[in-house]
Amino acid sequence: MNTIGTDIRITLWGSSHGSHIGCVLEGIGGGLDLDMERITAEMSLRRPTSGIGTARREDDEVLIVSGVTEGVSNGDPISIMIANKDTSSKDYEQFRHRPRPGHADFTAVIRNPHHDIRGGGMFSGRMTAPLVAAGTVCRLALEEEGVDVGGFTRSIGDVVDTQERGAKDCWNSRGFATRACASDIDAGMFETILEASSQGDSLGGVVECHVENLPIGVGEPWFDSLDGELAKSMFSIPAMRAFEIGDGVLSSKARGSEMNDPFTISGNEVFTKTNHHGGILGGRSSGMPLVFRCFFKPTPSISMDQSTVDLESMEDVSLRIEGRHDPCIVPRAVAVVEAMTSHCILDMMSRGGFIGN
Amino acid sequence: MNTIGTDIRITLWGSSHGSHIGCVLEGIGGGLDLDMERITAEMSLRRPTSGIGTARREDDEVLIVSGVTEGVSNGDPISIMIANKDTSSKDYEQFRHRPRPGHADFTAVIRNPHHDIRGGGMFSGRMTAPLVAAGTVCRLALEEEGVDVGGFTRSIGDVVDTQERGAKDCWNSRGFATRACASDIDAGMFETILEASSQGDSLGGVVECHVENLPIGVGEPWFDSLDGELAKSMFSIPAMRAFEIGDGVLSSKARGSEMNDPFTISGNEVFTKTNHHGGILGGRSSGMPLVFRCFFKPTPSISMDQSTVDLESMEDVSLRIEGRHDPCIVPRAVAVVEAMTSHCILDMMSRGGFIGN
Amino acid sequence: MNTIGTDIRITLWGSSHGSHIGCVLEGIGGGLDLDMERITAEMSLRRPTSGIGTARREDDEVLIVSGVTEGVSNGDPISIMIANKDTSSKDYEQFRHRPRPGHADFTAVIRNPHHDIRGGGMFSGRMTAPLVAAGTVCRLALEEEGVDVGGFTRSIGDVVDTQERGAKDCWNSRGFATRACASDIDAGMFETILEASSQGDSLGGVVECHVENLPIGVGEPWFDSLDGELAKSMFSIPAMRAFEIGDGVLSSKARGSEMNDPFTISGNEVFTKTNHHGGILGGRSSGMPLVFRCFFKPTPSISMDQSTVDLESMEDVSLRIEGRHDPCIVPRAVAVVEAMTSHCILDMMSRGGFIGN
Amino acid sequence: MNTIGTDIRITLWGSSHGSHIGCVLEGIGGGLDLDMERITAEMSLRRPTSGIGTARREDDEVLIVSGVTEGVSNGDPISIMIANKDTSSKDYEQFRHRPRPGHADFTAVIRNPHHDIRGGGMFSGRMTAPLVAAGTVCRLALEEEGVDVGGFTRSIGDVVDTQERGAKDCWNSRGFATRACASDIDAGMFETILEASSQGDSLGGVVECHVENLPIGVGEPWFDSLDGELAKSMFSIPAMRAFEIGDGVLSSKARGSEMNDPFTISGNEVFTKTNHHGGILGGRSSGMPLVFRCFFKPTPSISMDQSTVDLESMEDVSLRIEGRHDPCIVPRAVAVVEAMTSHCILDMMSRGGFIGN
Repeated sequence: MNTIGTDIRITLWGSSHGSHIGCVLEGIGGGLDLDMERITAEMSLRRPTSGIGTARREDDEVLIVSGVTEGVSNGDPISIMIANKDTSSKDYEQFRHRPRPGHADFTAVIRNPHHDIRGGGMFSGRMTAPLVAAGTVCRLALEEEGVDVGGFTRSIGDVVDTQERGAKDCWNSRGFATRACASDIDAGMFETILEASSQGDSLGGVVECHVENLPIGVGEPWFDSLDGELAKSMFSIPAMRAFEIGDGVLSSKARGSEMNDPFTISGNEVFTKTNHHGGILGGRSSGMPLVFRCFFKPTPSISMDQSTVDLESMEDVSLRIEGRHDPCIVPRAVAVVEAMTSHCILDMMSRGGFIGN
Repeated sequence: MNTIGTDIRITLWGSSHGSHIGCVLEGIGGGLDLDMERITAEMSLRRPTSGIGTARREDDEVLIVSGVTEGVSNGDPISIMIANKDTSSKDYEQFRHRPRPGHADFTAVIRNPHHDIRGGGMFSGRMTAPLVAAGTVCRLALEEEGVDVGGFTRSIGDVVDTQERGAKDCWNSRGFATRACASDIDAGMFETILEASSQGDSLGGVVECHVENLPIGVGEPWFDSLDGELAKSMFSIPAMRAFEIGDGVLSSKARGSEMNDPFTISGNEVFTKTNHHGGILGGRSSGMPLVFRCFFKPTPSISMDQSTVDLESMEDVSLRIEGRHDPCIVPRAVAVVEAMTSHCILDMMSRGGFIGN
Repeated sequence: MNTIGTDIRITLWGSSHGSHIGCVLEGIGGGLDLDMERITAEMSLRRPTSGIGTARREDDEVLIVSGVTEGVSNGDPISIMIANKDTSSKDYEQFRHRPRPGHADFTAVIRNPHHDIRGGGMFSGRMTAPLVAAGTVCRLALEEEGVDVGGFTRSIGDVVDTQERGAKDCWNSRGFATRACASDIDAGMFETILEASSQGDSLGGVVECHVENLPIGVGEPWFDSLDGELAKSMFSIPAMRAFEIGDGVLSSKARGSEMNDPFTISGNEVFTKTNHHGGILGGRSSGMPLVFRCFFKPTPSISMDQSTVDLESMEDVSLRIEGRHDPCIVPRAVAVVEAMTSHCILDMMSRGGFIGN
Repeated sequence: MNTIGTDIRITLWGSSHGSHIGCVLEGIGGGLDLDMERITAEMSLRRPTSGIGTARREDDEVLIVSGVTEGVSNGDPISIMIANKDTSSKDYEQFRHRPRPGHADFTAVIRNPHHDIRGGGMFSGRMTAPLVAAGTVCRLALEEEGVDVGGFTRSIGDVVDTQERGAKDCWNSRGFATRACASDIDAGMFETILEASSQGDSLGGVVECHVENLPIGVGEPWFDSLDGELAKSMFSIPAMRAFEIGDGVLSSKARGSEMNDPFTISGNEVFTKTNHHGGILGGRSSGMPLVFRCFFKPTPSISMDQSTVDLESMEDVSLRIEGRHDPCIVPRAVAVVEAMTSHCILDMMSRGGFIGN
């Protein structure tokens, strides 16, 4: 099934080179102003930037064909469609028997011989476009509740932003091509992508995401914890390879006395003095900012010669991938992380009764 | 809901200091030999080791009260029970209004004032005992399919095992108190836990898990990918803070030419020459060994003075936690990681039609 | 959520007077020939017949915008769309505060003030159009397995077909406007609808459905029994008010010695000599033809003066419903029953492992 | 899976002759007084009555082993257990190859050769005991909301109660062995059961159920309608063969002008003047009493000679069923209908946001 969420549910459909891609978003109550300008703005943050993005040009116009009456949600499922306009399907058929290293071709074709191989079919990053549209609707609903979601690029290759960052930085990152928080870091990241790209290579990186003003207690016990649901959601984004809450990786090398965040009272509210726990205790929001990181591998599509196999002749062969690809997916992935986070948080708030039906 | 899995489903119930804990395991077909000796052996790997584990002593005898006829599964739900025998509930009531730093007390009580606070209630690591029992049943079913699951301790504090490890090492780790793969590393890990413990402190660490002989293509598209489901499953284990597939963290700093694992043919089968991808491509098993890491934070229960708040008087207070606790949960967590992995893999194989109903 | 099914899933969206209606059908494997002529033929059986159906004219052209490559399913979700072309939304706004008796207006508006009231919104029978399209795809998959689904009109008002009927009769009913099995019954049913219609009134009736060549054992234990899932599925059809398996109503007045169907052997296969049980024993298919009946109430839209209330002034008022309506929904409902049955059976066969993934 | 419900969930386990049967009830919030006397009282209504019930004697003591602190729910899953004490498993093994007519033996064994055949295994009516316990907990929660659930025996064989009945009658029926509403009807029903029983035969009948004081709007759109969910729930009860909402069967023969229930205002509230619709419009509660009927077939276990087949020799054989059985299940089924209804209503109210999390 191609569905995520329990109370707020996204069902995804389409493929990279089909006529349309889209999704059905269920569970949004009546009365939400569906601000199309905002949706367009978020979609544009997912679009490739000249120089460091793919040459495929899609306008990504979002059509909402149900669930809306005069610009306001009516409580029915919201059906979202986006046309694929700039497709070029030649050369893909070979990948059915000559799988690209690091791609889904191999596992997709072995599992399903009828797999639509054009542009990677349903495994394409193209499918994240309707996710950003649907996630933005969720984000609008969260903003009505006062909850803010924001992401930025923490690192690309070995260019790492070492500063502590917050919601404002996330917002600022919208002004930079790489979604870095500051112009010097943006310049460094842009440069390193260009360099890798000029060598026919690609780069990975890290997206960090913050959620502020969450009520205390969001998250279900045990198996549907907030961290577990967020992790599952983030792993649905292509090329995601690791997920960390708060100081997760670091904490494995640390002592309890260093990592336990002491509670304190300020202005009649309970806080923790530090936030090593990244806003989640016992699988539920603690009221502190939610902070997590998504580690992306380098785009597997590179324009160098690579070794692969021919599944028909069962021989080792050399492969050179033509076509239009992003040398680094991270700058575009920030918008996807934000969208999927918005969906996950809204779903978990709804499940916990923090938002009325 | 306290349920995980789609085709193979675990429903967990109980609390740390209730009379019993248990779970219902659904979806196991008829005809599986439920080897109680094996279940006992796996349970013992989750039990605390003298010197570096809690002083609470539970025999963890597993009662299977349905789903079995003469030692063989009959296809009905398998109801599993374990008695709590060594409980001591005094002193816990204070945590209802003086939450322990790093614990679930705060978020549990704010969400549900009726929360059973004794021993942490349902948020206790004690609840992993029935998960190991149920997971071992799943593991027996996997072994019938030729699939091997194994874990070991990759690091504790700054004692890190830097060797490449495989299924055999995982098996060997069963002979060491810390679940390290070799005696010298075990000694070092044991030592560092003792040292932290003697200072009233605690340590985190990393569990690595391997799954071998998976068929190609296990994992559903997009939202129910094998990596996403594994991550969600692992985050249900208390104190888990980060999850990495293959060289996930490292790959974020690397280039595509370094991380793409080239396909090759050997003995008429397709392999990848390297396994940076950790056995998952496009959210599905590639046929290479599955390799992933779980990063655990230090046990939050430490015996030093800590700062917290009193939720009744709304004042900052000092807290000292008495009671019996593990200075490092990692050695015991290996068995839990293996059990939850076994459940997840069996569920995903069943969902994908790799195992008959 | 607007979703039905577990392994084969339909997610419905749209409303009576929106631009489009549609659904996403998930779980159909690759390689199924999506015969558009057949889909068109089934859609036409749901369209109103001149004289006894609504005057609203929709061509119901089915657009499949994903999940198909060159006419064959590719395993991806199948996104289905149908345009609404002949809508007339005037006069509906009044029903928001003057609910039509027997309609969903009252419960819809009380629950959700943002309810799209035009044409009944999402509660309209119009929404069954994409269900017939999706159900027909399921039917094509069932036919590949040798399973036949067929329905017919058992009664309209007091015109009752008293003959025993089988798959062939169901097929023959496709030639008659009322979906009766024989021309004399068709004539009688047509006549009685005309008569009620001429008086501004409406009629109810009964649809009977048969499924032949089901393997033995389809149906999950207890809560997801074949009868339970069929009942739930049928109750999703507007105006359905009772559901009966085999001789269900009659059996409540009978003795065990009359109702127990004895097993017997014929041609090395096991049958029951009679089929009072309607093909389901213990919630699972017995191998005998599945026979069930759906009781529909008269269309609530009648053109007589009716009493209702004004929810704003809180006064009793008189209401006269203008617009285009079916005086009896039953002839058109047969196609919907067949479609929903096809979906349910395919889903249950898939869940039981009777159809490969 | 052996699970029913979405927000309030029951997972059933056990078998007729295993050591215990039980279920896990999830979703009950903290703070509900779990009145054990009431649970015992409801359990006793499901127990067989001397003369017209099975000779199997079970005390049905309900053990609640989790989810309760000092008699009050704590929000954790409620694990319920009941011991099987009066089992006699001899003679059942033959049914594995000589299936009893009208029973689940045939479909159970064909689907799963490892099926536990003793006492019918998991298909036994015995399994309804934990359902009554769990359903009574749901009923206690409903009563806190002011919602009343009540059932009674509408007919047994050809003894039919033709009076209109309400909540008070349902309550009165608890005083009669057959769950009839009045002593003369009870006497007639008792008599007819005795007569059938004395002839080695069995009888079917009809249970009617009422739910009063439901808020308006309970029920999800389309596939998860209140009628659909109730139907599915009722079909999980063994021997259920037809389900009717309001005047469902009758309405199929009627005209719209007869069946449309006009709205009216009384005391500033909206009612319908009649209740042919049985309290459900558009799949949602209308605020009128919910009224539905469950048609049960005669118990298939009769003590006459019956024809069946031998699945090993593939011959027709004669079978005589020994053992202890109810000649009519209907009087005991009333408690089960009430329990399952209570669960369904509480689940649907919770899903619709009518009850706080």
